[in-house]
Amino acid sequence: MSAVVKGNAVVGQSGGPTAVINQSLAGVVEAVAGHDAIDRLLGARNGVRGIVEERFIDLKGLEADLLERVAQTPAAALGSTRDKPDEEYCRGIFQVFEKNNVRYFFYIGGNDSADTARIVNDMAKQAGYDLRVFHIPKTIDNDLKVTDHCPGYGSAARFVVSAIMGDDRDNASLPGVKIDVIMGRHAGWLTAASSLARRDDTDGPHLVYVPEARMSEDRFVNDVAAVYGGLGRCLVAVSEGVEDETGLAWGERIMQTSERDSHGNIQLSGSGALGDYLAELVKTKVAAKLGGKKLRVRADTFGYLQRSFAGFASPVDQKEARLAGRKAVQYALAGRPSGSVAFRRKPGPKYGITCFRAKLADVARQTKPLPKEFINAAGNGITDAFRDYALPLVGKLPEIGKL
Amino acid sequence: MSAVVKGNAVVGQSGGPTAVINQSLAGVVEAVAGHDAIDRLLGARNGVRGIVEERFIDLKGLEADLLERVAQTPAAALGSTRDKPDEEYCRGIFQVFEKNNVRYFFYIGGNDSADTARIVNDMAKQAGYDLRVFHIPKTIDNDLKVTDHCPGYGSAARFVVSAIMGDDRDNASLPGVKIDVIMGRHAGWLTAASSLARRDDTDGPHLVYVPEARMSEDRFVNDVAAVYGGLGRCLVAVSEGVEDETGLAWGERIMQTSERDSHGNIQLSGSGALGDYLAELVKTKVAAKLGGKKLRVRADTFGYLQRSFAGFASPVDQKEARLAGRKAVQYALAGRPSGSVAFRRKPGPKYGITCFRAKLADVARQTKPLPKEFINAAGNGITDAFRDYALPLVGKLPEIGKL
Repeated sequence: MSAVVKGNAVVGQSGGPTAVINQSLAGVVEAVAGHDAIDRLLGARNGVRGIVEERFIDLKGLEADLLERVAQTPAAALGSTRDKPDEEYCRGIFQVFEKNNVRYFFYIGGNDSADTARIVNDMAKQAGYDLRVFHIPKTIDNDLKVTDHCPGYGSAARFVVSAIMGDDRDNASLPGVKIDVIMGRHAGWLTAASSLARRDDTDGPHLVYVPEARMSEDRFVNDVAAVYGGLGRCLVAVSEGVEDETGLAWGERIMQTSERDSHGNIQLSGSGALGDYLAELVKTKVAAKLGGKKLRVRADTFGYLQRSFAGFASPVDQKEARLAGRKAVQYALAGRPSGSVAFRRKPGPKYGITCFRAKLADVARQTKPLPKEFINAAGNGITDAFRDYALPLVGKLPEIGKL
Repeated sequence: MSAVVKGNAVVGQSGGPTAVINQSLAGVVEAVAGHDAIDRLLGARNGVRGIVEERFIDLKGLEADLLERVAQTPAAALGSTRDKPDEEYCRGIFQVFEKNNVRYFFYIGGNDSADTARIVNDMAKQAGYDLRVFHIPKTIDNDLKVTDHCPGYGSAARFVVSAIMGDDRDNASLPGVKIDVIMGRHAGWLTAASSLARRDDTDGPHLVYVPEARMSEDRFVNDVAAVYGGLGRCLVAVSEGVEDETGLAWGERIMQTSERDSHGNIQLSGSGALGDYLAELVKTKVAAKLGGKKLRVRADTFGYLQRSFAGFASPVDQKEARLAGRKAVQYALAGRPSGSVAFRRKPGPKYGITCFRAKLADVARQTKPLPKEFINAAGNGITDAFRDYALPLVGKLPEIGKL
């Protein structure tokens, strides 16, 4: 064990919130509590922004009851930021650290946050300043490299599965075509989770489109018509970042079309656009394909509820997010090198994880797409292999009864 | 007690599903189980549509375990319908009843279903045919007359409160203007439930707009600018049916504008339109009012999740929906007149209800708007009186911790 360095610690939260990002914060606070090496634990308001502006609150000795309530609360209790620091910004962070004798930095966030952690860590090394930097993974997108999965994903996935399970019954009650747009600009992990709602061949989602498999207009229209032709209804789950056959995101494509077509101040931008556009395609082209049938078509865009819905986190995800926070502190106190907390799945049929220290550079900036073996050959559905991977992360699912 | 008439019973479900419409169905099945007067209990597929087409399934003696799973499942297990029968359609229903010796008819639905029940009941009376018709209330909109509240509302309200609680923390994490569009075309009950998410003066929703109080563009822009100016953020809850100062629904107004402006095949119709339009207003007019400030603006339309999300029903709502189903059978076996099951709140501080038999004609077709005392004087918020009314219906809320 390397020598323990005495000083202060900073913890911050970054990027889009999740239902369990505060569990990781609570894990850090808990793990720091008993250690003399860390004098003050400073919570940075709004991530890196609060660091450079020295907006800190003292978190050491936070009342256990309040900490537990914070841990249960979705979104970043310290406030978050969308800032993506460059070298100069990071120099500002490092200067604040030196000034305040900060020797430990815990940053809860995605791959951009890992990159910030990496840059600041490199600066400290170059300056011969003993700083231990730990990135604590967080993203509903589940797209970080190295780790088996990311804290935040299980809870968002749990929300998506319950939404789709209920919506599938809704669609069966009042048959038609329903399109659900799910978060994920570049990776389809969260949209893929919709497939966990299926228990038999008639259950939706009947079609699942992710950014990793291109969706042409023809493909979409033909697929929906085929499902509707067979079942008399169709539930579609689609990633917000799905691309057309040329690799252009549908969202972009719609914006372009809209700008060309419209002369007023209303633009087809904003969160409902993709769903509404696809619904229109169904009303026109799918309906025509089905011999001019009048179809009942609706679209929902799940939006922020996926990441912030209160009182519905996955218990497994909560536990693991907390663990990730605690592990970061343990690793940091055990000495350098700095790193990112990562999960490895235990072998065997019973689900479990162990933690390890990943290199910051291996996690920073990069994203992990849904692997090919999780997408069906047709590119419009998700495989059973994904089910095995994802099911343990979401917790117990609601029971569904049918007549 | 009137003479018990021997024969068969029909039960059906109608209109937009809820998270507990199957609890009412289960209540009917349970209550019928022990009674010899009812020979067969026929579940009509897709409500009145299934009756005229004689698509029935036998529900008497349904396995208890399956029944319980069905009860826990959102949306109409028998299938639903949007048909609104006229006299002729109802004559078809009545003929099927005569043919099958149906003496009991239980119809779970909203005010249109109550009207169907009323017409069929009148026909039976005129024909001297002993038929007992009971409407079992169901709607997330909570807009039925006579009853204190409607089964289905508490669960939808619970979803909305948890969504808004989490979204408020999300908005506090990454400050900006967030607009949440909530179901309710003519009544603001469900949107009003968003106000239960507030625990202190800084909590959102900071503005709540319901169809019962008109929202001009100026009002909206000024309100949002004022809240943002004070708090640095703003969370808005708005009913999909909110009207402008002339009484025109904003949804209609946007459609009209869109059709005038656009020359392509993309129309600003569909579920995301109102939220996107209001977001655009914030980006332009509110931003201008704040001196050209660049605002972070997002909109979500909660959509079908409000009525069908699985595994998150209000326990009170589940219990009461079940009770309504059982009561309908008890009333019917006790004799005519036909009616609609209604709830009355017990006096005193502890929440409780008793059931009574309302007249079908008093429930049919009419809607109950949010009363004036539940809307603040400015028409942009909800009062504490509403809180007292609604809180017992949604069950225990998540705990929120803040730093």
